[in-house]
Amino acid sequence: MKLAMIGLGRMGANMARRLMRGGHEVVAFDLNQDSVKRLGEEGAATASSLGDAVAQLASPRVVWVMLPAGAPTERVVEALGELLGAGDVIIDGGNTYFKDDVRRARALAPKGIRYVDVGTSGGVWGIDRGYCLMVGGAPEAFALVQPILRTLAPGPGDIPRTPGRQEAQGGAQSTSEEGYLHCGPVGAGHFVKMVHNGIEYGLMQAYAEGFDILKNAAGERLPEEHRYALDLGEIAEVWRRGSVVGSWLLDLTAIALAESPELAGYSGFVQDSGEGRWTVMAAIEEAVPAEVLSSALYARFRSRHDHTFAEKVLSAMRHKFGGHLERPAGG
Amino acid sequence: MKLAMIGLGRMGANMARRLMRGGHEVVAFDLNQDSVKRLGEEGAATASSLGDAVAQLASPRVVWVMLPAGAPTERVVEALGELLGAGDVIIDGGNTYFKDDVRRARALAPKGIRYVDVGTSGGVWGIDRGYCLMVGGAPEAFALVQPILRTLAPGPGDIPRTPGRQEAQGGAQSTSEEGYLHCGPVGAGHFVKMVHNGIEYGLMQAYAEGFDILKNAAGERLPEEHRYALDLGEIAEVWRRGSVVGSWLLDLTAIALAESPELAGYSGFVQDSGEGRWTVMAAIEEAVPAEVLSSALYARFRSRHDHTFAEKVLSAMRHKFGGHLERPAGG
Amino acid sequence: MKLAMIGLGRMGANMARRLMRGGHEVVAFDLNQDSVKRLGEEGAATASSLGDAVAQLASPRVVWVMLPAGAPTERVVEALGELLGAGDVIIDGGNTYFKDDVRRARALAPKGIRYVDVGTSGGVWGIDRGYCLMVGGAPEAFALVQPILRTLAPGPGDIPRTPGRQEAQGGAQSTSEEGYLHCGPVGAGHFVKMVHNGIEYGLMQAYAEGFDILKNAAGERLPEEHRYALDLGEIAEVWRRGSVVGSWLLDLTAIALAESPELAGYSGFVQDSGEGRWTVMAAIEEAVPAEVLSSALYARFRSRHDHTFAEKVLSAMRHKFGGHLERPAGG
Amino acid sequence: MKLAMIGLGRMGANMARRLMRGGHEVVAFDLNQDSVKRLGEEGAATASSLGDAVAQLASPRVVWVMLPAGAPTERVVEALGELLGAGDVIIDGGNTYFKDDVRRARALAPKGIRYVDVGTSGGVWGIDRGYCLMVGGAPEAFALVQPILRTLAPGPGDIPRTPGRQEAQGGAQSTSEEGYLHCGPVGAGHFVKMVHNGIEYGLMQAYAEGFDILKNAAGERLPEEHRYALDLGEIAEVWRRGSVVGSWLLDLTAIALAESPELAGYSGFVQDSGEGRWTVMAAIEEAVPAEVLSSALYARFRSRHDHTFAEKVLSAMRHKFGGHLERPAGG
Repeated sequence: MKLAMIGLGRMGANMARRLMRGGHEVVAFDLNQDSVKRLGEEGAATASSLGDAVAQLASPRVVWVMLPAGAPTERVVEALGELLGAGDVIIDGGNTYFKDDVRRARALAPKGIRYVDVGTSGGVWGIDRGYCLMVGGAPEAFALVQPILRTLAPGPGDIPRTPGRQEAQGGAQSTSEEGYLHCGPVGAGHFVKMVHNGIEYGLMQAYAEGFDILKNAAGERLPEEHRYALDLGEIAEVWRRGSVVGSWLLDLTAIALAESPELAGYSGFVQDSGEGRWTVMAAIEEAVPAEVLSSALYARFRSRHDHTFAEKVLSAMRHKFGGHLERPAGG
Repeated sequence: MKLAMIGLGRMGANMARRLMRGGHEVVAFDLNQDSVKRLGEEGAATASSLGDAVAQLASPRVVWVMLPAGAPTERVVEALGELLGAGDVIIDGGNTYFKDDVRRARALAPKGIRYVDVGTSGGVWGIDRGYCLMVGGAPEAFALVQPILRTLAPGPGDIPRTPGRQEAQGGAQSTSEEGYLHCGPVGAGHFVKMVHNGIEYGLMQAYAEGFDILKNAAGERLPEEHRYALDLGEIAEVWRRGSVVGSWLLDLTAIALAESPELAGYSGFVQDSGEGRWTVMAAIEEAVPAEVLSSALYARFRSRHDHTFAEKVLSAMRHKFGGHLERPAGG
Repeated sequence: MKLAMIGLGRMGANMARRLMRGGHEVVAFDLNQDSVKRLGEEGAATASSLGDAVAQLASPRVVWVMLPAGAPTERVVEALGELLGAGDVIIDGGNTYFKDDVRRARALAPKGIRYVDVGTSGGVWGIDRGYCLMVGGAPEAFALVQPILRTLAPGPGDIPRTPGRQEAQGGAQSTSEEGYLHCGPVGAGHFVKMVHNGIEYGLMQAYAEGFDILKNAAGERLPEEHRYALDLGEIAEVWRRGSVVGSWLLDLTAIALAESPELAGYSGFVQDSGEGRWTVMAAIEEAVPAEVLSSALYARFRSRHDHTFAEKVLSAMRHKFGGHLERPAGG
Repeated sequence: MKLAMIGLGRMGANMARRLMRGGHEVVAFDLNQDSVKRLGEEGAATASSLGDAVAQLASPRVVWVMLPAGAPTERVVEALGELLGAGDVIIDGGNTYFKDDVRRARALAPKGIRYVDVGTSGGVWGIDRGYCLMVGGAPEAFALVQPILRTLAPGPGDIPRTPGRQEAQGGAQSTSEEGYLHCGPVGAGHFVKMVHNGIEYGLMQAYAEGFDILKNAAGERLPEEHRYALDLGEIAEVWRRGSVVGSWLLDLTAIALAESPELAGYSGFVQDSGEGRWTVMAAIEEAVPAEVLSSALYARFRSRHDHTFAEKVLSAMRHKFGGHLERPAGG
């Protein structure tokens, strides 16, 4: 089918390419006209403006917005609200906060514009591996865009079927087995993607701490008989085979460690996107104890400071009751 | 090659089977003679005592001990110290604390008995998938038992080679790519396995918290427009394809959720084996902040109480300063 | 001065009493007319309705709202917005979310009604000890109600002056030394109170965990030589004198332990009010790692479940990879 | 009574002074003879060696060791084992690991030397405020040294009696109300002190995080209407009066903030002594979930790194799956 792809960054451009490979017609638009031109050379129709992109579509028009969450996405969705009409579909494939989805869908509803939120996982590998898609929206809107989703998704591939599913599903294959899922009404897709990323933070931090412990097993303060100089790259590699901790994130860690056992070139300054924060906030709203997901988030917060003010408070207290003055600033 | 397998529980029996399938000769012994008999019917030589098992081997004798860590393993290793002699090899394949390995190896050294510690991951699936093996010990002892390790390990299988390895390794394949690794001197194998399990706790807890948040997204206290009744089994399934959180643990979760979306039949009472505790202790000894691994451990501790004494202290404080008396016991 | 006190629960009634003792005139109102009558017998003017309470005041009218945060406070503030006029002051002394303060103040501004938020700490002891008051609002509104605040606050008492203050303050005494403080514009009072309660959660949990460790030092699984049967009440008592961990919360713990060393009668089912949650959310909004405050909150969440769904997920995973089936439900 | 004080650092010297003020005779020894001389000028008998110190005492000799835990204390206790005899008492007033106490007491028992472990809290303020003392050892050894303990302890002072104690204790005053306590057999004193310090870490971290959140409430990324520039010194001050979070640690924080609201001169590089680590280890040995105490410890570990290896692992993973390369080292 034909759709417009708004936003041709790393994710949007690759998704457009995968869609074209899958036989879909893509009208490409980005504020950066170089990106548009490049997609044009690869077979996409090009648009010079949002209005131009919309004008090249026929009803019901489908517009996939693939922009940074927050203001950029907000502005484009608002503009599309003016340009589109009854029966048309806006897909937000970015990392939007699910409460924003709900608000937007409600604002668009009076005009008959349908809003679909798609949480998209896959990173730079998605163009070849396919993207895991978590979708929220009205069932008929989901049905309408399903051909696109099927193309973007990885498909069943050679991943073995989950034992017990066949019976549970009456033998039918679910779209989840192809890598895309209608999770529920508007917001549900981004909600599930949000938790997905929260879990991702936790998984990453678990590996990170483990490798940190392995690394420091060679520490000179340890008794010599309990000190080990371990080859982290080899350990990551062996865990890829037959072990309980095997995962794609481990595969990626193994790649990085194969390149540099010291992870030279990586700063250890770690950003967080919104989903980790929202996941913890959702946990709090639900009164779910989410120790690990929170700790993983905080490790990132902490990684971006030389010292927190909290640590200075600790230093100050220690000084005041014990007379300890630790490494004075600038000293 | 020929070896004795001491301990025919779930792990030991299956490993003996995989070894026999791989052409090795196994002398099987367990205190439970039914288990011995069963292995005998499957082709193993049977032993009526530890001494009998040892007597059926030729020098250098190789004895694989596959027993619960702690007292059971300790007793057998001690007994083997009496039965074996110079050049013989004791392999401890259980979940021993690495400091116990170091102590034992030192005790056995004067007699010339070599001690090899093997951390073994794979669970009930290992018989077919193979076991991931992390090995500590002297290089020549490792070399001696390598034929066994190669058979137990999964081999490279269809797992794609880590990009960048070929160059880093000068093209040669490492044993890590077959699923077993000589990690270092005695204790190193169990140290790496210990951290492996620590990571496993963290990974499990990350998934567990995430699914808890998904589950409680339907909570009645949430505003109706932000409430979602999600199908956890379908979500686990879709994440298996193309997503960043794909892993073997997720595959297992998908199986469990396919059987029962409510996880009926699971109590939520969660044991911990020693490795999670030792991992946190190692982190503390190394001064490595291990928030996530610790939290994962504590979640298990907490799961085994109706209420902790700490919680009663909280109740008591709240009562004393605010006059709150919450759900009095038995009230 | 004269003011209306709306809400005569544990906090409101005691504050009205302390104000009357301090020479202020209080018009008392509560939906529960018994509470009103009781205050009337103690010297307050009584009101039969909100309108009646307001009618008994002269401009600029001062109304102190002391109700549960959320809907009850919201409704009364809205109603007062209809009843009051330019120059009048609404004080919200409850535990309101600071963002609600900001919203309300903005809604009341066009009518010239001034909004003051007061975070109030002191619990059931405040009537005698005085209340610690954290105030947000316009400076002139703060000035207007200062006589009330001074009466409610504890005053300097016999608490020694903080060394170094005299110089820093040019010798003048700050209101903070009397126990009340103008923290900033609207919302600042409740923001500071919110963090205060967040800290309180953390402090409480620190003591709770410590006493839990002391309690379990008698555990039978510990080696006998490292096992201690400790008298927790005596320990709390000794820490009250000269120790670094001395505090009012410890004093309260000592009271509870003197009554019952086992804390019999306390369930360990621990509620949380909103402030702990909002503190963690504020930390996340500010990207401040707040491990301890979050953990303290989660301990309370966890205390209210037999088992979390997360724990069932752990049980399920363990069963699937290791064949462990732990204490099946109903088994 | 007469005793030797071995170790005249900040703690030992001040304790010697307080003892002399209380009428006891102190034989002072330290490897640093300047420290010995200074104490001599203040009235202590001086010793030129450990043997000389012992020689100046009469049976039963009492020697208080006040040295850094670990090797320094170990060496002196061993030497005293040679110098002392039946009926003599060694008091270890430092921060020794309780398992070391147990081991030492057992080694000294055959010679009839009694070992008493005393956990000592009070810091630089103890000389005037008195020291809170937690004591382990045989009851008769405790009785023997009680005159010293009573002098060192703060006494009841003006701290109000815990309500309910009088009845519970049959009216009698416990030594805990004077600030010292016989906690149990050898090791119990240091065990209780260890947990005391673990709690202290948790309390400190709770305040530290709270002040960090207050500090960052002025962050420019926050919406302007929810942004507050707060005076932390004034807030610490107001909390000292009537609030639930009042404590000695808060008093100390107020002092530091009165000196410098930015805590200029404090690095935020925070050491940990052994007790925090041992507390967490004890919690793990007892299977007590100690989230807050552990997090407080880890915050200190983390404070001493520019970046952890764990953070580099996170950076590397993010790069590999998302193409993010964050602030490359040296870039």
